[in-house]
Amino acid sequence: MITPLTYEKGKVKLIDQTKLPQKEEVIETCDYQEICKAIKKLAVRGAPAIGVAAAYGVVLGVNELTSKEKLKEQFDQIVKELKDTRPTAVNLEWALTRMREVFEKNSRKSLDQIKNLLLQEADRIKTEDVEINRRIGRQGAKLIEENDTVLTHCNAGVLATAGYGTALGVIRAAFDEGKMIQVLVDETRPLLQGARLTAWELEKEGIPYRLITDNMAGYFMSKGEVNRVVVGADRIAANGDTANKIGTYSLAVLADYHHIPFYVAAPISTIDFPIKSGNQIPIEERPPEEVTHFNGQLVTPEGTKAKNPAFDVTPNELISCIITEKGVLQKPFQNSIRNTLQ
Amino acid sequence: MITPLTYEKGKVKLIDQTKLPQKEEVIETCDYQEICKAIKKLAVRGAPAIGVAAAYGVVLGVNELTSKEKLKEQFDQIVKELKDTRPTAVNLEWALTRMREVFEKNSRKSLDQIKNLLLQEADRIKTEDVEINRRIGRQGAKLIEENDTVLTHCNAGVLATAGYGTALGVIRAAFDEGKMIQVLVDETRPLLQGARLTAWELEKEGIPYRLITDNMAGYFMSKGEVNRVVVGADRIAANGDTANKIGTYSLAVLADYHHIPFYVAAPISTIDFPIKSGNQIPIEERPPEEVTHFNGQLVTPEGTKAKNPAFDVTPNELISCIITEKGVLQKPFQNSIRNTLQ
Repeated sequence: MITPLTYEKGKVKLIDQTKLPQKEEVIETCDYQEICKAIKKLAVRGAPAIGVAAAYGVVLGVNELTSKEKLKEQFDQIVKELKDTRPTAVNLEWALTRMREVFEKNSRKSLDQIKNLLLQEADRIKTEDVEINRRIGRQGAKLIEENDTVLTHCNAGVLATAGYGTALGVIRAAFDEGKMIQVLVDETRPLLQGARLTAWELEKEGIPYRLITDNMAGYFMSKGEVNRVVVGADRIAANGDTANKIGTYSLAVLADYHHIPFYVAAPISTIDFPIKSGNQIPIEERPPEEVTHFNGQLVTPEGTKAKNPAFDVTPNELISCIITEKGVLQKPFQNSIRNTLQ
Repeated sequence: MITPLTYEKGKVKLIDQTKLPQKEEVIETCDYQEICKAIKKLAVRGAPAIGVAAAYGVVLGVNELTSKEKLKEQFDQIVKELKDTRPTAVNLEWALTRMREVFEKNSRKSLDQIKNLLLQEADRIKTEDVEINRRIGRQGAKLIEENDTVLTHCNAGVLATAGYGTALGVIRAAFDEGKMIQVLVDETRPLLQGARLTAWELEKEGIPYRLITDNMAGYFMSKGEVNRVVVGADRIAANGDTANKIGTYSLAVLADYHHIPFYVAAPISTIDFPIKSGNQIPIEERPPEEVTHFNGQLVTPEGTKAKNPAFDVTPNELISCIITEKGVLQKPFQNSIRNTLQ
């Protein structure tokens, strides 16, 4: 079992995902600003994993403090820096809010007690996430049939979470139940999370898969070689509109055209209840060099300008259902999402 | 003006497109088997360019012969080797058929005369192609409006032809007419013909463009930032179904969903009249290493299996019109294509 992030004796250890699969390097740090950097450069990525990393970032930040003087300001600063790392995944904000609630509820306690309680909360967020993913997996596995070929995009696996995965959790659960399945993995340009990370996880677990370039998905759908599409999510609006890795929207349109079920798998923490629809979700624009370069090498002519939106929004009408730890949400999502609050 | 292929004093010189844009290397050869290799490894690619290269390949092959003894067998062997290089682009077969017709019509002449006549025919195919592309450009430019953003896939430019280009010829002609346009260039994995070759051509000519990864096309369409799509073709069936670089089909589905006109630009020589529909077009499966490797470096885990169909077929209902040197063909394509024979 791969554990992407651990905390031990004041140190966070996390797998540097930018180096995978060629090198399994670990970033080891007791500095919360290193966690900020790791999130920014995608050494840790995937909405739930970012949430967990940020929670431990708060732990590291507060660990450095030696007195309660200006504690509130310092806490706010730590949280702000962690929050500002990336704009789209809502789990980041969600985890930081949980950490803040613990902090505020216990602000009268001693610094050591506060440190302890924050660590307990970060541990809880992490442990809960694995359990939530297992539940998502069990819910989603019911939708996968014997001999299905399941297409997935980017990496919504162990590496994108505290463990097990969301979209890959569904695939993993179906496989573990003994279903004969095949996975078609979109390589997911520009940063190749499919080719590098999803392929790495599937290879380790012996789940049969084939890698394709993103522009081949429609071809295999037209040949009848894709039975369903399962993706993760970075933020889900109250109406079900879903922000996820760039390319997800194109897949959803293609799946719709070919009458192939399109599933989003995500924890409830990925739902941004106050946001009514997807057009309110901020889309991160990342450096153009990620597109003009491939594995650090310039592939275009000098001077080429590129666009690099990191996410897109799939409107609810293109989503067949949303697989959560509280069950499989059906349309209309406004209602089924609201009901999860009860 | 870039000239991708020239013939001088018994030698073919062609730009090695696998090295672009970082190096402008020229392959210089008087050996037809080097032409075969160049076509196979995509040093020369693009349906019309392959046709031109193959015609000169015949010239080089026959140049090597010193007597008319077994001339027919040797000619057949040369043509066979050239034809077997790649299966999808019909222009290869079309150009070889033209060369064969000249050969058969003149088989009683002296070897030197035959050599001369074959060279004249290859020169004619090349010169005609540039003229045809200019006509395609003029026809297509009428469809492009001021301030349009035109999305293109792969490279259907100078480098894919004897000069000027088909899809890029349309863009080039609209730009030369003074229309303010923007080009959105799909990078076109796995071999990045968009990022390497189309960007190189547009950069050289000062035509404004932005590079995107293939999976971003849907996003920009949904934002209203694409006014039309123009692509080339490797083979067009009698009903208008069009084989082109993998990813074209996905783009066509996306354009249809967003009500964006989708144009195919190609010479009449790309139409395979005896083929009734696209499902009869052979799709080349290229080595999986093109997907798992980049610039010779493995990017996936060891053991990753990939699929690599090099083309897909866009059904006629997803094509708005086909821009040829004989005019813009409208639906139903069965009729408009048949009429080009008159």
